[in-house]
Amino acid sequence: MEPIDTLITARWVVPIEPDGRVLEDHAVAIHRGLILAIAPTREARVRFAAEELIERPAHVLLPGFVNAHTRAAMSLLRGAAESSSFDYWLNRQVRPLEQRWMDAEYVRDGTELAIADMLTSGTTCFADMHLFPEVAAQAASAAKIRACIGLPVADTPSPWAGSANECLAKGIALHDEYRDDPLITTALAPDVDSSTDETLLRVRRAADELELPVTTRLVEERSLGGLDRKQVLGRLEQLGLLSQLLTAVHAPELDDSELQQLSRVGASVVHCARSAMKLGLSECPAATLKAHNVNWALGTDAAACSNDLSMLGEMRTAALTSRGLSPTLSPVPSHDWLRAATLGGARALGLAEVTGSLVAGKWADLCCIDLGRAHTQPVYDPVAQILFSASRDQVSDVWVAGRRLVEDGRLTHLDLEDVLRRAQYWQARIRDGLEPPAGTL
Amino acid sequence: MEPIDTLITARWVVPIEPDGRVLEDHAVAIHRGLILAIAPTREARVRFAAEELIERPAHVLLPGFVNAHTRAAMSLLRGAAESSSFDYWLNRQVRPLEQRWMDAEYVRDGTELAIADMLTSGTTCFADMHLFPEVAAQAASAAKIRACIGLPVADTPSPWAGSANECLAKGIALHDEYRDDPLITTALAPDVDSSTDETLLRVRRAADELELPVTTRLVEERSLGGLDRKQVLGRLEQLGLLSQLLTAVHAPELDDSELQQLSRVGASVVHCARSAMKLGLSECPAATLKAHNVNWALGTDAAACSNDLSMLGEMRTAALTSRGLSPTLSPVPSHDWLRAATLGGARALGLAEVTGSLVAGKWADLCCIDLGRAHTQPVYDPVAQILFSASRDQVSDVWVAGRRLVEDGRLTHLDLEDVLRRAQYWQARIRDGLEPPAGTL
Repeated sequence: MEPIDTLITARWVVPIEPDGRVLEDHAVAIHRGLILAIAPTREARVRFAAEELIERPAHVLLPGFVNAHTRAAMSLLRGAAESSSFDYWLNRQVRPLEQRWMDAEYVRDGTELAIADMLTSGTTCFADMHLFPEVAAQAASAAKIRACIGLPVADTPSPWAGSANECLAKGIALHDEYRDDPLITTALAPDVDSSTDETLLRVRRAADELELPVTTRLVEERSLGGLDRKQVLGRLEQLGLLSQLLTAVHAPELDDSELQQLSRVGASVVHCARSAMKLGLSECPAATLKAHNVNWALGTDAAACSNDLSMLGEMRTAALTSRGLSPTLSPVPSHDWLRAATLGGARALGLAEVTGSLVAGKWADLCCIDLGRAHTQPVYDPVAQILFSASRDQVSDVWVAGRRLVEDGRLTHLDLEDVLRRAQYWQARIRDGLEPPAGTL
Repeated sequence: MEPIDTLITARWVVPIEPDGRVLEDHAVAIHRGLILAIAPTREARVRFAAEELIERPAHVLLPGFVNAHTRAAMSLLRGAAESSSFDYWLNRQVRPLEQRWMDAEYVRDGTELAIADMLTSGTTCFADMHLFPEVAAQAASAAKIRACIGLPVADTPSPWAGSANECLAKGIALHDEYRDDPLITTALAPDVDSSTDETLLRVRRAADELELPVTTRLVEERSLGGLDRKQVLGRLEQLGLLSQLLTAVHAPELDDSELQQLSRVGASVVHCARSAMKLGLSECPAATLKAHNVNWALGTDAAACSNDLSMLGEMRTAALTSRGLSPTLSPVPSHDWLRAATLGGARALGLAEVTGSLVAGKWADLCCIDLGRAHTQPVYDPVAQILFSASRDQVSDVWVAGRRLVEDGRLTHLDLEDVLRRAQYWQARIRDGLEPPAGTL
């Protein structure tokens, strides 16, 4: 028998690759943080001598979710700004709050709160995009979760950096620091709207040299009717940023030629259904992205706008609303939603070689969901059950690179009480400066 | 000091009436199943000598949810029929399955499974609409949950009754049986599409005599463009069924004159956002109903189509999608969603005098939600937190008529293991006869 670290047996395994597969009574063998094999439980029990055997008889085992866009630190503002107008939400509520409070301590405490939220809902990897990325990287690294840390680049000064120069210098230093880290990677995150061409050209050169993903928001208010987005996409192309390294966050409704262009270069789109709905932003329907063979992922965006970092919730709302958004196209099958929430995200972050599906040789980034509750019984179709019925508390276990970060629903590496205490400390400080909402949602 | 049965203290109390109110550090006093008073905790502790004191320091206490439309027994088919076409779903998948399997035992076991699901997600009252209503009534009564049992009336024979005559006779007998029951009420539930005018006139006479609500589906596929609905509404009016007793389930997009008519007579509409989205049915936007002052409620519909009987999930998806459905109207405020999920439902079921809000003299139908978890912290706005962030496992306690049916998340009156065993028994029987889905969602 082959000695290994861990063997997890489950009622069902959904490996995401090959596409559409549901394996019954299978086991995942993990050794030195990597997936060694996936095999029928009966075979695996004979083949492997596992130091740790974990049996999950009513559960489904699948890749951990990849949250392809969030601003983790903003979990400190969850529910603080419930305005129905994007402009008011951003410029009267959230920006002034962050301008007043944002510092390294805010980012550390908010990021840890978000990590607790994400891990317990099955997320094993998140893409962050906020200031003080070195603090977010440190928080993620300490919590042992996988993260792709966005390196903000903007010409406008911020509490973190005074210029694009400083952004790039600090960002590249951070990239270098984590160059060989097994968990933390980086992506350039320019603010396209406010950056000069020169700055964006330097972003492009850095991306090409370091082979870094470039992730940028392509946000458009539903009422604006497509003008802004046209300009932004054209500009990205002119500056050579429209490439397979590009991940467009949000991406409003695109026309056929734009979609073909994204598909041809191999760029990715991160769909953030709930934040788009809450803030009235236009979003390119998933069915349209799928029809044009554009890689698409799912992101929760910040808890300050979507209110919830659970990818189960994100996937569900996106799937339910998808049909109404593109009534003339075939509905997106349930397997595709799971794929977008895992492998699609990994691809968008340049991590598809190492995570996002249960394939031998990839990191053992997994989550396990208990379908034994009344509201997920009986099980005819475990994928439909995950997509439409399971709630976040059914995530029983989570592993990142083979390390069990959630065990029977409890965090193993984070001091939850301390995290919550610090969240309340911030709330008490922030609460007093709140603007009243203008037309609460 | 005044001796009472139960005093529950909570960090927040959201009574729903008066509208928009959030009470901090308040307590609810319960005696003989009724709400006796709501008072600041400090006062309540001095005034009442409670046999049982329950302290909920990180929780919000609110009326239990009223699920204004479901078909409880169909929880046995959750995930069994994931087709994207309403016609295929209904006529090729669900109807043949129910024609084959439906009997009293099926309805008992499915209803109990649904009750377990609903109670643990904070629902204290549900409106059922399915065959074998006497079995559903019995299951609800045994479980001590409040229910408004639909009495099906149709000319087409079913496994339950061979004719409209038989439906009405059995239905009225059932109504009589529960006439003085504190938990179980009934509503006439004619299938308008398949019933003759004569049958509907008899429904109307029975409704008028017994003062029973009449609840009927007003379903329209999105592709049909409003023709069917016009005919149905006109017919209901002609037959005298368009009154304050009427509750229209689903109700597709209505024009101004139809909305004014519903508003004028005081009829209610039950919004079933998720099932409508999954099945491609047209739904009248909540903002439109609100703008026309039509009483609106929320329903999960059957788990066979919406996959989830949690009103938290239903409310959230409905609220998130509402804005896109009616971009020109003001968004529906978060308090209104909670109101629709409680008092709006009670009103639609003719129960607004006895439940749906925390008001002295009403039954003590409450649910308590723990906001102390990482993903619902910090709390600036408990209502936004319930609407957009809390998950079903945060429902810590549920009372119906003062009886605690959920305690620390566990069912007190249902044998959950037995309920799950029977769900699995049905799955094993049903699974073999499944049609493959045509274009899974």
